[in-house]
Amino acid sequence: MEPDLIQNSVAHETQDDLGPNLIRMKITDQIKELQTVLRDKSTSRSDFIFHADRLIRLVVEEGLNQLPYTKCSVITPTGYPYDGLKYERGNCGVSIMRSGEAMEQGLRDCCRSIRIGKILIQSDEETHVAKVFYAKFPPDIHKRKVLLMYPIMNTREDGDGCKSSTGNTVIQAINVLREHEVKEHNIIILNLFTTPAAVRSVLQTFPEVKLLTSEVHPVAPNHFGTKYFGTD
Amino acid sequence: MEPDLIQNSVAHETQDDLGPNLIRMKITDQIKELQTVLRDKSTSRSDFIFHADRLIRLVVEEGLNQLPYTKCSVITPTGYPYDGLKYERGNCGVSIMRSGEAMEQGLRDCCRSIRIGKILIQSDEETHVAKVFYAKFPPDIHKRKVLLMYPIMNTREDGDGCKSSTGNTVIQAINVLREHEVKEHNIIILNLFTTPAAVRSVLQTFPEVKLLTSEVHPVAPNHFGTKYFGTD
Amino acid sequence: MEPDLIQNSVAHETQDDLGPNLIRMKITDQIKELQTVLRDKSTSRSDFIFHADRLIRLVVEEGLNQLPYTKCSVITPTGYPYDGLKYERGNCGVSIMRSGEAMEQGLRDCCRSIRIGKILIQSDEETHVAKVFYAKFPPDIHKRKVLLMYPIMNTREDGDGCKSSTGNTVIQAINVLREHEVKEHNIIILNLFTTPAAVRSVLQTFPEVKLLTSEVHPVAPNHFGTKYFGTD
Amino acid sequence: MEPDLIQNSVAHETQDDLGPNLIRMKITDQIKELQTVLRDKSTSRSDFIFHADRLIRLVVEEGLNQLPYTKCSVITPTGYPYDGLKYERGNCGVSIMRSGEAMEQGLRDCCRSIRIGKILIQSDEETHVAKVFYAKFPPDIHKRKVLLMYPIMNTREDGDGCKSSTGNTVIQAINVLREHEVKEHNIIILNLFTTPAAVRSVLQTFPEVKLLTSEVHPVAPNHFGTKYFGTD
Repeated sequence: MEPDLIQNSVAHETQDDLGPNLIRMKITDQIKELQTVLRDKSTSRSDFIFHADRLIRLVVEEGLNQLPYTKCSVITPTGYPYDGLKYERGNCGVSIMRSGEAMEQGLRDCCRSIRIGKILIQSDEETHVAKVFYAKFPPDIHKRKVLLMYPIMNTREDGDGCKSSTGNTVIQAINVLREHEVKEHNIIILNLFTTPAAVRSVLQTFPEVKLLTSEVHPVAPNHFGTKYFGTD
Repeated sequence: MEPDLIQNSVAHETQDDLGPNLIRMKITDQIKELQTVLRDKSTSRSDFIFHADRLIRLVVEEGLNQLPYTKCSVITPTGYPYDGLKYERGNCGVSIMRSGEAMEQGLRDCCRSIRIGKILIQSDEETHVAKVFYAKFPPDIHKRKVLLMYPIMNTREDGDGCKSSTGNTVIQAINVLREHEVKEHNIIILNLFTTPAAVRSVLQTFPEVKLLTSEVHPVAPNHFGTKYFGTD
Repeated sequence: MEPDLIQNSVAHETQDDLGPNLIRMKITDQIKELQTVLRDKSTSRSDFIFHADRLIRLVVEEGLNQLPYTKCSVITPTGYPYDGLKYERGNCGVSIMRSGEAMEQGLRDCCRSIRIGKILIQSDEETHVAKVFYAKFPPDIHKRKVLLMYPIMNTREDGDGCKSSTGNTVIQAINVLREHEVKEHNIIILNLFTTPAAVRSVLQTFPEVKLLTSEVHPVAPNHFGTKYFGTD
Repeated sequence: MEPDLIQNSVAHETQDDLGPNLIRMKITDQIKELQTVLRDKSTSRSDFIFHADRLIRLVVEEGLNQLPYTKCSVITPTGYPYDGLKYERGNCGVSIMRSGEAMEQGLRDCCRSIRIGKILIQSDEETHVAKVFYAKFPPDIHKRKVLLMYPIMNTREDGDGCKSSTGNTVIQAINVLREHEVKEHNIIILNLFTTPAAVRSVLQTFPEVKLLTSEVHPVAPNHFGTKYFGTD
């Protein structure tokens, strides 16, 4: 347990630097192993997808903790009352294309009938300004908590062909959500890998947004979408 | 078995009307039941997704029959030679957004590391002309067989907000593939529900394309994407 | 299509030999490929499980056709009536240990809350008589249709350590079901690979039982359970 | 984060009482919600299975942390070295029938080709002594780490028809493993719900075994196997 405590205290320091709305998953051996497989250039596509799906599932399960629960009491089959928790309705997922879509199945595997919207952002070929090309949301999204899915956030390029400055794709996506009157504090970003610069950029722009990630590291695995989907 | 033979001979007649490149799945009781659940407006979203995923899986498995196999001989654990078939490499999937994406997981569940591209087509708000907004393909797609996924093909509106004439979305998608030098006879459309008019429109425009569907019916369930993803 | 017709007519002849209650799946290229992978001694365990699960899923889906459906009419979201089919309640699965258990997940993936019972039969070490060691069934199983799952049926040894004569394990399992007052015509065996001798033995003993299989072949892949579970 | 710290310190105290080899999962809101659904007698079978499978998956992922990892360095696609962890080979799963089998798929979903053995223990009808009826293990199990799967450990009855004193079924299973020369410290029990008495009984008998659970509670949900499989 000691190495873990050390790691946690270090993590805590760094976390303070990046603000209270950055939520880092606890790095266990098995999560570190998943991250290692995803980083390794010699990983086959089949293994990459398998391990990515496992890490996504863990991030999604952890992300569900950021949603509201209410206390409830249920009766067990033997007639015994049990004080438990009940998941509140009124949530949805939104994936940022393309790599965010890799996280949709993991969300659906945990929440069978959750509504899932989608945003496509691309940089204008001339001006290089990130621009919304497509957006489709659940009805009444402004009343909902939004799990915004995007696996890689980095400094220069997000691997989906959107060459832009820090975390810009996510910032643009949040702008679109805000235009649809989603409350800033109702947005939780589900992320696998991010750079510290991207964290700062997003959370300074939107201080009430929460960002859950499995790793903050100066170098993000930008090949994620390309390798997961097998396209250029 | 008799009713089945009758059904097949009927199917054969109708199939001839719509050309030899329309491949209809054999309608069994369980496929008819899946179609019924998907047609029924009283179906819950959770049940809709579950039954859609089952029908998609069956269409995908059937679609894999359209891909090339070669004969091979293997040795069994008891040293016995067995004459079998081997799946050839060099295929890929392409989903047409948005509803086609519902078919990606089914394809991945059958072909663990198949490459999956994506096309977004939307009608221009003024001219109503279907236009390509986004396309991302596997490298060397021109050499590959392409399983083009789109669940609903109908006469007026395809349920993804693309109000257009018959089968236009799919036709535009094939145009994009053709521009990437995919051979027409290498394209197999995987579809759940189509109207006869949409079949005619697509197969008359591209006579070498194959179209696999679970149902040809004058009315297509246009609510598919909306209900599957839970968005407007 | 011609080779298929030939294959089917051949299949038909053989099928007649083995009686009308043997239901053979139509052998498509992709099913033949799955069978080839499962026969090949050089297949890795990971690939073996993946391909076995796909073949199991197809057998299960086909098996659901043997269950009773009733006609129904539903209303579509656009107010259109649609004549469909509805799956009747009152079915269950029973797996014969150990290899039959490999088919449980496939059944559950198609029927989310189907009840699944289990039978363990082993041969007495001294007398070599197959004997029931464990049985657990859904309540009121005597009123239910039973999908009896066992992947390999062969002449001498069934790969689960039960050295016995032809199809004896399945025959013993049916005896147990009969003792629980399950009606013979309510039993449908779901099987991947069987020998002709095993078919004859089972269907001559129980002429009203149905047997669905993906392959009738003089040699059955007896290593199935050992390879699937990775145990001796 | 404060309530969490409190919870952890409380958990720590209780954990000390039950010894250092009891590993409790951190109880998050979403895990508590899963436990609540499984406790609630009004939960439908379909929901029960869905939530049980989610909790099982989380226990399995956490259990993988108890396995040995070694440090490794990989090269990323951009040529950057990354210090990571690598999962060591030489593990296996063993499920205790029947309810432990519900955990097999979750293990397989995390470890695609892990070998999975099985033990059936039943109490003698006359003497009420727990007795091994069936055991099938991976070859060379004595060299392996064993994830021993059993979801419910309680004081009187384990819901699988084995009326016996505290944790007796698991103790008997470990005896069988020990007879196969599995090292005590190589055994990790994966459990969903246990009573404190069962923890004490098992860990006092085998002080080197590790026990991972999602909940220690005086009342265990004994209906687990019955509800999951839908049998008496």
